[in-house]
Order: sequence, then structure tokens, then C-alpha cells
Amino acid sequence: MAVNVSIPKGTRDFGPLEMRRRNYIFDNIKEIFNLHGYLPIETPAMENLSTLLGKYGEEGDKLLFRILNSGDFTKEIPKNEFTSENLTKLSSLMCEKGLRYDLTVPFARFVVQHRNEINFPFKRYQIQPVWRADRPQKGRYREFFQCDVDVIGSDSLFNEYELLQIIDKVFQKLGINVIIKINNRKILAGIAARLGMSDNLIPMTIAIDKIEKIGRENTKNELLQIGIQEADVESLLDLISTTGSIKDQIVFLKKYFKDNEIGLKGVAELEEIISYVEMNPIKNKIEIDLSLARGLNYYTGSIIEVKAADFQIGSICGGGRYDDLTGIFGLKDVSGVGVSFGADRIYDVMLGLNLFPEFIESAVKVLFVNFGNDSLKTCIALSEKLRKNNISCEIYPQNTKLDKQFKYANAKNIEYVAIIGEYEFQSKNLNIKNLHTGTQEQIPFDEIATYFKNR
Amino acid sequence: MAVNVSIPKGTRDFGPLEMRRRNYIFDNIKEIFNLHGYLPIETPAMENLSTLLGKYGEEGDKLLFRILNSGDFTKEIPKNEFTSENLTKLSSLMCEKGLRYDLTVPFARFVVQHRNEINFPFKRYQIQPVWRADRPQKGRYREFFQCDVDVIGSDSLFNEYELLQIIDKVFQKLGINVIIKINNRKILAGIAARLGMSDNLIPMTIAIDKIEKIGRENTKNELLQIGIQEADVESLLDLISTTGSIKDQIVFLKKYFKDNEIGLKGVAELEEIISYVEMNPIKNKIEIDLSLARGLNYYTGSIIEVKAADFQIGSICGGGRYDDLTGIFGLKDVSGVGVSFGADRIYDVMLGLNLFPEFIESAVKVLFVNFGNDSLKTCIALSEKLRKNNISCEIYPQNTKLDKQFKYANAKNIEYVAIIGEYEFQSKNLNIKNLHTGTQEQIPFDEIATYFKNR
Repeated sequence: MAVNVSIPKGTRDFGPLEMRRRNYIFDNIKEIFNLHGYLPIETPAMENLSTLLGKYGEEGDKLLFRILNSGDFTKEIPKNEFTSENLTKLSSLMCEKGLRYDLTVPFARFVVQHRNEINFPFKRYQIQPVWRADRPQKGRYREFFQCDVDVIGSDSLFNEYELLQIIDKVFQKLGINVIIKINNRKILAGIAARLGMSDNLIPMTIAIDKIEKIGRENTKNELLQIGIQEADVESLLDLISTTGSIKDQIVFLKKYFKDNEIGLKGVAELEEIISYVEMNPIKNKIEIDLSLARGLNYYTGSIIEVKAADFQIGSICGGGRYDDLTGIFGLKDVSGVGVSFGADRIYDVMLGLNLFPEFIESAVKVLFVNFGNDSLKTCIALSEKLRKNNISCEIYPQNTKLDKQFKYANAKNIEYVAIIGEYEFQSKNLNIKNLHTGTQEQIPFDEIATYFKNR
Repeated sequence: MAVNVSIPKGTRDFGPLEMRRRNYIFDNIKEIFNLHGYLPIETPAMENLSTLLGKYGEEGDKLLFRILNSGDFTKEIPKNEFTSENLTKLSSLMCEKGLRYDLTVPFARFVVQHRNEINFPFKRYQIQPVWRADRPQKGRYREFFQCDVDVIGSDSLFNEYELLQIIDKVFQKLGINVIIKINNRKILAGIAARLGMSDNLIPMTIAIDKIEKIGRENTKNELLQIGIQEADVESLLDLISTTGSIKDQIVFLKKYFKDNEIGLKGVAELEEIISYVEMNPIKNKIEIDLSLARGLNYYTGSIIEVKAADFQIGSICGGGRYDDLTGIFGLKDVSGVGVSFGADRIYDVMLGLNLFPEFIESAVKVLFVNFGNDSLKTCIALSEKLRKNNISCEIYPQNTKLDKQFKYANAKNIEYVAIIGEYEFQSKNLNIKNLHTGTQEQIPFDEIATYFKNR
């Protein structure tokens, strides 16, 4: 009787089909990254807690998975201090290491640690799991993959354009129509300044970021609570809801900011990015969305967010520019910009819209039936011929009942079964059965590679 | 001033060049696995400690990285029990989860948990990091990758042959000449039985497994200590040191075992595997090595180990057959066989023998010099043409001094720099400089793809 085994809640096993679908997404993304000169790095799953703590706010600190020190983990702790009142202190005394919470802080740590070997501007991508002790729920996991692409050490807005190109190509390759929304933190700062609300920039942006989710009325109430005058709130909500062409929006914003320096700077940055897009348009739709704030407080310039056009789900890619990412580790004035692709959501969109190509379902093309040693030598030789032509195949490992071997092929979604029985062995032909259509054909041994190369 | 940041001891960052080298190894291995119908799976980094504990011996339990429970981890622990005398008990009360120690136990757990969805024989591979709180030293890390390929649910020895094929092809692809050593646990059991030492099979195999490392004399002493008679020890050492052709060795062993059932079974298994090899020889050398025991106690049949022929290092691949892997989780009688490729050692061999192909050093083919907006539009269009032809390239993100842009290309090992200055812009030519040879050429804009496709 098998034991009732399980895995920790919020974690997942990936079987062969899920793996092939996930790899299809990652491989396409990596191909685009590589074509644009972005290169892979990887960092360890464990970081020193001193690297991680304080980087994600108080709430984030609580969500870090901490690793118990090896050896005597009690030795730093006075006996009477081991009580539930001292949890934070205790965990710091018992744990030096934690699992990474995202790829951004480890990347900042990587850049600072290796700053003397790195060739700036440094274009890197990183696809690795991260861990958060969040309450697991539908679509939220305690172990999940992030897929980040960043360039650090260049403040040129051409980098933003290249990221838009990459986003555009990735989603074209995957077959997902998207709307790419852009904004600029400086525009938000300009708006706050015009409303005399510069001290409340963060709560203001957090409130307007929610407008799509909670609606105009609720957003209005939140903005009033921050202390913005009702007339200003209405004009702010009108402003962030304006649509129209990008050109029109830029003209409007320039007028709106008049001589507000930070606001005009933001508009100029948007305008420069758009000027590159005009040199070589991208296929998916780009929109300026002034409600875009992405809650994150380290963005200082461009903000980017990508939504699927034909599927209801949160953003599937997003990011922005940060002027001081490595500042948390004391390395000042290194500007960077990057985006993160949400692999789990992209997976859900592709499954929902049936976008995975059919070949993913079927990893192996041919199963050679095993009739024992007489024909086995021929099966081995023919299977090797197929593999030399890059066609995946296998020989059933033992001589057992035919229906068992066919059942195996069906369950593994192998399209063709190759049979070398007595008759075929004598006539040097294979009997090839297509399990999807039920048709059978006789093929001379020496035509096997040609036969399968064409299907 | 940058903070002195670091990563936990025994862990590593992988920069772009190391990543590309490692991916070269993994991609080649995966390609062979896939061609033989082995499919990928992944399991979570964290497993329940109940899954891991007791599977690796007492020493292994101590080397598990344990994850502190979220929330109040003190609540199960009576105040006066928090002392260094109770470390094992305390860690069990504070930690429910641990990082996986290998891929074998998680695979067994996966098979048992998903036994009703799995199509047996189940051919899977798994390439993921594992973590061990070992004392770090040269070549031994606390985080390292394992690369396992197993088939479970078939006792056919044809699977062993397929693994030999895979091993042979992987190392051919990577350019490493290897010696593949095989043995069988049943032969070792037969030898022990003939010496009246069946109860001491484990210490006996552990002792003879060391002969290559510690030499004949020291092995002899260890065997004497186990209680084997001196005359028997000498004949045992002669036996495991016999060389000669595989055929001769099999004939000799059959005589040696006479009517010893287990020994003869082991020889018959070896003979069957060799019969498949004779049907379709493999390129690398295969040897029967009776000293091969691989210490591991769960192997029940074939034992396989691979050594690099031209480089001094421990085994770079190894494995065997286990008849009861899932028995640890109560699922009996599921036989499997598999091997594990040692990625770190393979990396060292390839670096040592200079086997990495040159293209790995240079990830990006062309850098377009940025002279500002006049020629930028052309640069973007031409770069897109190259990427459509699968040629990796980038445009320097800002208009800055030429020598800075060249320095960037050199540091990133980009072979070609494409320059569109005033003259080139007017004449619709590119000036292409090869940084490796120093040569320059003028190429019409519309020939750029053809030009680079041929180099």
C-alpha cells in the first residue's frame, strides 16, 4: 500500500506535458532575448538574509523563507528569550540564509559584487524560481518562476524602445495579441506637483493604479481621503482616463504641465521612446496609460505593462526604469530598465486561447514494437537512423503483448507504431501504423528516414 | 561606496559565459534524452521533511537544509526544551520543509504520488539543483545541479542498453572520450556468497570499491578486517582485477560461480546487455569492472560508471538498477534503472581539454555603432533584418565616443562592428570591421543578411 505522499502547499510538480509547454514559452522568450544581445545569468537559490531583509518592506520580510543554520542553531539564543514575543529576533539568530524572493534584489547584489568584471551597459536575462511564504490561492504559488530581462548602466531611452521590440516579438512568437501600456513616473510626479500633492505621490499613485480594478467612484474616494480637493480629483480622474492618439496625448500633456519641469521631463521621455517606435513600428498596440503606476516604489522613469488583448487576466509582463537599484547596496548612480514576463499567466493565456502548437502534445514520433531478438537488431538499426535525422523514437523495452505496447504508444501520444513481424522481417519492410488516423503503410527499411522526415 | 556583498559559502553565481557553457552541456544532453523518448519533469525545491528524512542515512539527515516554519515557530516547543541537547527534535518541531538533497527521492515521491496518471514504463529526465549542507571545498558545492535520466516500471535489460547508447552519444557529442564500466550487484553478492561473507556484502563492496583510490594493499587490510580469510582475500583481489576481453571475463565468471545462483544471474544479466551492444556497437569503450560497487545500497542489479579517458577526475556519470526505489513510499515491486550525469565535472573536463566550441565565447555577432538619430533608423532596420535571419546583434544604446563603443564590443567578444557614418549613410553602404582580424569591408545595406549568414 503506497504511502500518502504530498508536496508542500503552494508548490507544484511539472509533468512532461506541462514541462514541454513551459519550455516552449521559455525557449521562445530566450531566443528573442539572445537575438537582442541579452545574455543569461543565474544566482543561487539561497542568499544571505542580510542581502534580502529590508528590501521588500515589512510585509515582504515576513514572506521570506528562512533556512535554519546548520550545527547548533540554539547557541546564540539565551534560554529565556525563546518565546513567541521574539520571533523576528529569534529567526535572525537561528537563520543566516533565506530563499530569494524575486530576481531583482539578487541581480542588484550580482551587479555590485561583480562590478569590476561586468561590461556596462550590462544586458542580462534571468529565468529562475523564486519563493514567497504567501497564502497559497488560485494562481498564486509559493514557488514560481520569474523571467526578467534588464539592462543596467545606461540611461538611454533607446533601451526602453528595445524592450518594447522584445515584448512585441515575444508575444507575436507566442501568438498572443497584446496591448502595451506605457507611462512615466515623472508624469505622475508632475501631476502630483500641479495638485500640490508632491508629498503624497506614493498614496496618490497607489490609488490611481487601482482605477481599472475598483472603478472611478472608489478611486475618487481614496483620492479624497488623501486630501486632494474634489475639483482636483475630478480633473485628475479625467486626465488619467483620456484616450486618443499618442500624439494628441503628448500635445495635451505638454499644455497641461506648462512650466512644470518634472512633468515636462516625463513627457519628453515618452516622446523620445515614441520617436524610436516611429522609426520602426512594432506590431502590437501601444497606449499611453496615465493610470499606470505599478505600485512599486523604485521606478523613477518609464513604466511598462502588457495586457493580453483577447483574454481576461492581470498583466502578463511589466517593468520600468529605476535610477537607483544598486543603491541599496551602496553603488550609486547606476540607471537600469527592465521588464519581467509572467510565465504562469502566459501559460494560462496560451492554454485558454489554445495557442500551444500541436507538436508539443506529442514528444515522440515512432514506437518500434518489440517482438524479441529476431527483429530487435533491425529495430535498433532503424531507430538509430531516425535519431540521426533528429526524429525522436523508442523501442518498447520488452517483448510483451501487442495491445500493451499499443496502449503505451497511445498514452504517450506517439503518432506512429512501427512493426517488424515475421513477414516484414523477411520482406525488409516496416508496417507503419498511424495511431491518429488508423491508416497503415508498408515502407522499405531503407526509406524510413525519408518517410518520417516528411511528416 | 559599495557594500561588501556576498553569497552563502558553497554557492555560486553563473555569469553569461559560464551559463552559455553550462547550457551547451545541458542542451546536448537533453537532445539525446529526447531522441530516445525520455521526457522532462521538474519537482519543487522544497519537499516535506517527512519525504526526505531517513532516506540518506543519519549523516544525510544532518546535511539537509531545513526551512523555518512561517508564523509562530516556537509554539510546539516547551520553553525548557530549547537547548542544544535537543537539536534534532527542535528542528523537526520548527521546520516542516527542507530543500531537496538529490533528485532520486523526489522522483520516487513523484512516481508514487502520480502513479495513477503515469504511463509505465515511465522514461523521465530531470535537471535541477540540489542542496547539501556539506563542508564546502574545491569542487564540492552546497548548491549544485544533478542531471538524472531514469526509466521506471520495466525490468527489461534493454533499458540498460539504451542508457549505454545515451551515455555513448552524449560524450561523443561533447567530444569527451570515455570508458564505460559496468558491473552487477548480483555478481558481488555471488562473490560474497562463495566466500561465506553474504552477511558482510555491504562492507565488502565498500572496501573493494576503493581499490582504485587506496590501492591493493590497503584494500586487502580492509577486507581482512571484515573477517575474510587471507587466501580468499587474495583470490578476491585477483578476481576483481582480472582484465581481458568481455567474452573471456564472462566465460571465467561462469566457471567461477559454478552453481551459485545469484552470481550466475548477475553474469547472465551482463551477458544480455552485452548481446544488445553486439547488435549495434557503441563507440566508446565498455569494460566489465568487478570492483565497481558505487557504495550506494539501493542498487540491486546493473551498476554503471563512466570515466573520462583523457582527463584525471572522478566518475563523470554513473548509476544502476534498483528494484525497490518507490518501496520507501510503500509502492512495491517497481523496478527502475537510471544514471546521473555530473554536470560540474563534465564542465571541468571540457574546460581542461578545451572542448567548448568557439561560438560559445561570442554570443553576439554584430554591434551597430550609434551615431545618433540620422543613421539610427537605418541601424534599426538593418538589425531587424539580421535578427530575422537568426543573427544576434545589438545597437549601442547611446551616441557616445567611438572608442567607448568599440571597447564595449571587445569586452563582450562581439566579432563585428557595423558603422554607418556620414559617408556610408549617403552611399548606402555599411563599414564592417572584424575585431578579431582587424579587417574592414564596405557592404551594401541590402546585402547585410547574406554577408553575415556566411560567417
